[in-house]
Amino acid sequence: MDNLTIALDAMSGDFGPRIVVPAAIQALHHYPNLSIFLVGDIKEVRFFLSKENTKLVTQYQETGRLMVTESTSIITNDMKPSYAIRHSQGSSMRIALELVKNNKAQACVSAGNTGALMGLSKLLLHSLTGIDRPALVATIPALNNQNTVVLDLGANAECDSDMLVQFAIMGEILAKSVLHIENPRVALLNIGEEDIKGLDKIRAAASILKANHQINYIGYLEGNELLTGKTDVLVCDGFVGNVTLKTVEGLIKIFLSSFKMLLGHNSLVMKFLSKWLQRKLVKNFGYLNPGRYNGACLLGLQSIVIKSHGSANQKSFFAAIEQAILAIETNIPEKIANSLSSALPKSE
Amino acid sequence: MDNLTIALDAMSGDFGPRIVVPAAIQALHHYPNLSIFLVGDIKEVRFFLSKENTKLVTQYQETGRLMVTESTSIITNDMKPSYAIRHSQGSSMRIALELVKNNKAQACVSAGNTGALMGLSKLLLHSLTGIDRPALVATIPALNNQNTVVLDLGANAECDSDMLVQFAIMGEILAKSVLHIENPRVALLNIGEEDIKGLDKIRAAASILKANHQINYIGYLEGNELLTGKTDVLVCDGFVGNVTLKTVEGLIKIFLSSFKMLLGHNSLVMKFLSKWLQRKLVKNFGYLNPGRYNGACLLGLQSIVIKSHGSANQKSFFAAIEQAILAIETNIPEKIANSLSSALPKSE
Repeated sequence: MDNLTIALDAMSGDFGPRIVVPAAIQALHHYPNLSIFLVGDIKEVRFFLSKENTKLVTQYQETGRLMVTESTSIITNDMKPSYAIRHSQGSSMRIALELVKNNKAQACVSAGNTGALMGLSKLLLHSLTGIDRPALVATIPALNNQNTVVLDLGANAECDSDMLVQFAIMGEILAKSVLHIENPRVALLNIGEEDIKGLDKIRAAASILKANHQINYIGYLEGNELLTGKTDVLVCDGFVGNVTLKTVEGLIKIFLSSFKMLLGHNSLVMKFLSKWLQRKLVKNFGYLNPGRYNGACLLGLQSIVIKSHGSANQKSFFAAIEQAILAIETNIPEKIANSLSSALPKSE
Repeated sequence: MDNLTIALDAMSGDFGPRIVVPAAIQALHHYPNLSIFLVGDIKEVRFFLSKENTKLVTQYQETGRLMVTESTSIITNDMKPSYAIRHSQGSSMRIALELVKNNKAQACVSAGNTGALMGLSKLLLHSLTGIDRPALVATIPALNNQNTVVLDLGANAECDSDMLVQFAIMGEILAKSVLHIENPRVALLNIGEEDIKGLDKIRAAASILKANHQINYIGYLEGNELLTGKTDVLVCDGFVGNVTLKTVEGLIKIFLSSFKMLLGHNSLVMKFLSKWLQRKLVKNFGYLNPGRYNGACLLGLQSIVIKSHGSANQKSFFAAIEQAILAIETNIPEKIANSLSSALPKSE
């Protein structure tokens, strides 16, 4: 396997280097062909590195697999994207993206401000030809061991019909080339199944997709079909996608924790049973837990940028790093670029 | 208790009189002070009445508690609201609403085309002063035996900031007067907690709500907080509300059915355990099942209109009738009207 290099925005997310640093060490341990740039405040990064296995850290640094790159500022979550971008010089997010721009790294992972990450990525790494704005995409597990590619998950709170069509096409290419689904079904998320339902932009996108014979467009799906595997690609605007995904995550958390309480019991037999059931539960539903599929890919860029949940812990930030590795190995931007020109509607 | 009269759109929903008729008979049996108008195709309604207990049906008809009112057309789900309204003369939905308009009934229940029901209700029954467009509202169960008033659930796919503010105020009055919450917390559903997050209309609504000292506005909540009981009133546009609620319903169905499969086992002990667990599950999570809280109220009208799920079965259509009874008994339109004038922002 080829060597991989990833730049991590170590100051991003609710916990910054406290979780990014151990997740990086975990990834270096797991993937012998991986190198990592930790971009952040040198003092802070060193402090959290000192809490890791010193021998390993020294070894990673001496072999050039672990590099600490200094940043002098942080883009916070309460900054407007436009403001954040204007003031991004020296920030950990920008420097991590510049490492990708300058071909020092093949992917960037950040748990920071989504709008700023989107804007800066577009500015520094550029969109693919024919793509107005990149979209956050994730592959969500569905019933019967199926998977559904869902986008946009929050990069674009407002979308027009052209963007929805571009998302559909990118999602379709992803389903084909990464999930190896031959003729992926593509649906639009809507509030009814009838043609007349929903918003103007969705109806307009539906007309364009219907006319595109390269796309296996199957129509509208409603929220209750989200995890049923009725489609391989589900397209929506970033506001709805974000609310929906978070609703699913929240509900699953409630379910799993309520279940623990429900089974809380004092007798030995019950304790045993409860453990057994919890194992079954985690095995059957744990895959839906946010941490398991953390890391949404910013699809439609010329390079790879992965957005982690802001609230990610070490385990889920590690999952986001793994998403970056998968994206590099499957060469997502090139695959999208190669298929885009034939799939996009021709402008008159 | 006073006598109540409800008009049912018997031709509405996926199953029409097949489920509306038995649900009506069930309601008449359950509520001795209830009278019902069944509005629909006479032949069809009579056919399904003939499948019920003849003695009871005759008795209800003779005592004037069950009245069949003829309609000659149906507003279907694939009709555009504007078209449906123009061609609504003689339709079961319109006649049911006219019974309310003419004071023959105190509430109307329909499982029909949401957009048409909304438009016709506004046309025939009028909005309350200060309300641009009514909203679909339901009370959703949350953790720790709390309840959350959520609106809009799909009456208005597109909303501006003024409408969101009106929804917030109506939701707050409902939480106070029907759920008896003293100082209800009001939140806006958004894709982040920071002030700068989300759509313009949401930020504008937030500014107005912040300035309204009669409202206990607590800020933005994300999708994962939906069922946690962090707020008493949650406000969003009808598109997002509909997708979110349906996502929750779909996920719970998947959970409950997957769980049954998970516990499918052949030994006697396992069968016993599985039954026991299923009972616990239904007790603890069944309340979230769509059928249990079917029936969203069209809030902001001068009269009571309840929208049932289109896919409702007898049990859930019965639940929608019960929602209508509750709305009549708690006199929702009058309570909203009385509090609106002081709560609405003053126009300059």
